Amino acid sequence: MSYDFDVLVIGSGPAGQKAAIQAAKLERRVGIVERRHMVGGVSTNTGTIPSKTLREAVLYLTGMNQREIYGDSYRVKADLTMRDLAERTDRVIAREIDVIRNQLQRNHVELVTGDASFLDPHTLRVVADGGSERPVTADQIIVAVGTAPARPPNVDFDDRTVIDSDGLLHLTSIPASLVVVGAGVIGIEYASMFAALGSKVTLVERRSHLLEFCDAEIVEGLQHHLRDLGVVFRLGESVVGVDRHEGGTVTHLESGKRVAAESVFYSAGRQGATDGLNLEAAGLEADERGRIEVGADFRTAADNIWAVGDVIGFPSLAATSMEQGRLAARAACGEEGGHAAELLPFGIYSIPEISFVGPTEEELTTAGVPYEVGISRYRELARGQILGDTHGVLKLLVSPDSRRLLATHILGTGATELIHLGQCVIALEGTADYFVDAVFNFPTLAMAYKVAALDAANKIDALARLDV
Amino acid sequence: MSYDFDVLVIGSGPAGQKAAIQAAKLERRVGIVERRHMVGGVSTNTGTIPSKTLREAVLYLTGMNQREIYGDSYRVKADLTMRDLAERTDRVIAREIDVIRNQLQRNHVELVTGDASFLDPHTLRVVADGGSERPVTADQIIVAVGTAPARPPNVDFDDRTVIDSDGLLHLTSIPASLVVVGAGVIGIEYASMFAALGSKVTLVERRSHLLEFCDAEIVEGLQHHLRDLGVVFRLGESVVGVDRHEGGTVTHLESGKRVAAESVFYSAGRQGATDGLNLEAAGLEADERGRIEVGADFRTAADNIWAVGDVIGFPSLAATSMEQGRLAARAACGEEGGHAAELLPFGIYSIPEISFVGPTEEELTTAGVPYEVGISRYRELARGQILGDTHGVLKLLVSPDSRRLLATHILGTGATELIHLGQCVIALEGTADYFVDAVFNFPTLAMAYKVAALDAANKIDALARLDV
Repeated sequence: MSYDFDVLVIGSGPAGQKAAIQAAKLERRVGIVERRHMVGGVSTNTGTIPSKTLREAVLYLTGMNQREIYGDSYRVKADLTMRDLAERTDRVIAREIDVIRNQLQRNHVELVTGDASFLDPHTLRVVADGGSERPVTADQIIVAVGTAPARPPNVDFDDRTVIDSDGLLHLTSIPASLVVVGAGVIGIEYASMFAALGSKVTLVERRSHLLEFCDAEIVEGLQHHLRDLGVVFRLGESVVGVDRHEGGTVTHLESGKRVAAESVFYSAGRQGATDGLNLEAAGLEADERGRIEVGADFRTAADNIWAVGDVIGFPSLAATSMEQGRLAARAACGEEGGHAAELLPFGIYSIPEISFVGPTEEELTTAGVPYEVGISRYRELARGQILGDTHGVLKLLVSPDSRRLLATHILGTGATELIHLGQCVIALEGTADYFVDAVFNFPTLAMAYKVAALDAANKIDALARLDV
Repeated sequence: MSYDFDVLVIGSGPAGQKAAIQAAKLERRVGIVERRHMVGGVSTNTGTIPSKTLREAVLYLTGMNQREIYGDSYRVKADLTMRDLAERTDRVIAREIDVIRNQLQRNHVELVTGDASFLDPHTLRVVADGGSERPVTADQIIVAVGTAPARPPNVDFDDRTVIDSDGLLHLTSIPASLVVVGAGVIGIEYASMFAALGSKVTLVERRSHLLEFCDAEIVEGLQHHLRDLGVVFRLGESVVGVDRHEGGTVTHLESGKRVAAESVFYSAGRQGATDGLNLEAAGLEADERGRIEVGADFRTAADNIWAVGDVIGFPSLAATSMEQGRLAARAACGEEGGHAAELLPFGIYSIPEISFVGPTEEELTTAGVPYEVGISRYRELARGQILGDTHGVLKLLVSPDSRRLLATHILGTGATELIHLGQCVIALEGTADYFVDAVFNFPTLAMAYKVAALDAANKIDALARLDV
């Protein structure tokens, strides 16, 4: 039987793009289904790209990193509007979409525009904007539909004062005060951006600690910095309801507290975007959070159908999703997959940003793995002073016996870039001595690795001298 | 015989600092001689730190990286003055000096203030500001006196319109036009800064190519970008004289061309700062450029005297100097030195910046070493778009047989930071496949490594398929 495509990908976010391009590079006939105005997926249109662009614009336009140097009152523009921020974001999104379209075209991936739903395991119905529909068949199908914000039923979203991350980009002004519900990665990222913009932010989180998968010392540093920016933390608290009034909103917490704010931003989790897919027709089903279960190589319960990216759940990072897309496409094409990378860096684009790779101090302690800590503070680095970043810190966890690098945790400017050096040394089984012996450009933040490694090495050597 | 110090270091620049701290960590009594207003050396006071701070201020205050996004007319302040720039620089220098003083104190290194000259191989005369002098004795002496700008005898410097890098920081206004004589690293760095500030810059260089130790394609990219900023190149041309007039300067080239400009900046090499040292008393001499020759472990012709940093010549990079200081101090203390790092990163803080590690394409070709090229352009990276850097490029040179990474060359934002990842993979003997398989935070510039590695791997694989 002859199909329209060898491989058809549903969704053009990071996972879908890389799946399609990988299959194309393996010389398959590849199609990718996407809605007209959603090329690039949530990541490009309402998620990663706009939020990181917004963050960059906030840092620049508020002179955030320059305040150490020019004083608190320093701003590029006195009256920063959401419009200034949105203009930049729109331009970056438009270019990113161009780049993606271009990459797909160069690789001869056909873009099929419309909403897809399964008719059978090899056939999708694609409904275009005008309502015209066509069936599209494929040998292998890769589902990369991503997620949408979960909207709790007891909250009345109006996309103006009570919003989620989709609505946030359409705000017309910077709210003077903002309640952020949910201190997950997205909640923290936006809370810190609005705090930097001068909003009075209250962060409400059911759990008693922020970002529990991060190193506690690093989170403490972030929390300290956010308090400095005026953020009020309400941890271990739940929202029971939000009232909208003429002049703003009142958020009611279970503890009886009431918080007045111009706007309320909900970031209480996301839901797999599988509702319209008619998975049953392919013999599949989603769980209660809309997610699809996969086995080895990201294959679903249906032999010729694969699922990748946020729709399969943790860790839901663009970087990992790309890797999943690539691996699933190789598997779908019957190629050896290559092994999945085990060493995942985590990046949180808060202000200041966090990134880490490897276990936390807490995890090593629980596992009974001894370690020595090496610390470098940005304020002691020439580059930190030049950048006006005096709070940044880089922490290495080093095995006292083998001197192998176990983990790297960074809070501060460039953390999400710098982490890859620690990742590389761990992956290639290097020791702290690699950093001690290496020459680093001066002045750089990367030199923090050398300073921290020397710190750890000195402690390990001092212990060795005592313990003869 | 009992000396005042076990180890005495002359000069508190990067080499001297690290030498002193290393000796102190080995529990020696350590002194460091420096002039009152020069703690941190040239690097901190008139060299690396101010020029890199100035660069950061220029990038920020001119909105250089933002023009792609906000348009050419975008500036933080309409009337940028040297004062705005100098204020920032002064604050960073003051803090850096604090950090250095603090580090020396914490390590119990005694700061001896004054000018030093040898009386004999173990004794220095130190003359303080007021003229009071004292002899200081030491078992081991490490010379880390650095360099000063070389002033050609036929040029009449006035520190106002005809200046060198020491005078540059005291300019009261940004010159509307500037001739830069000498396109070495310092010349290029300042030429690009002033071009970014809007000065009409003419760069005169005796050699016919810029930065001959860099990869030609990268230099071409830099040159293209500088031309975009309005820089006029006069390569293969020599300056025969500079005339000062009421309204500015006229620089005469050997070819007969005359270039009018508000100011002339000479960056025609540097001279070892050994004039006042009275090296003869220690049985040493400097060469015609004021440099001291050293052998293994940076030992001079005198048994107990060592020399490190710019005063010994190439490569004269702060990062290497630090390493030399550390190694010389270990040798002076009779400790095993550890091996000197062989893999040196080079960083040039031009706009855009350049950094590389490993051989250039030209060097590999000359040596008959085959390689495949993998390229990633920032404009195709989401992070490049967010930063507004559309000209950046990262190039990997990969062995087609072993797939080992041979070299990394970067032009663009963050180059001097990013290079350390390529350096690490080369040092730990990784292959291009490390980057192909690794997961990178998204969006980051570091991801350029993955894109470039995929590019190289695809070419190598395509060749392998044909060549069976």
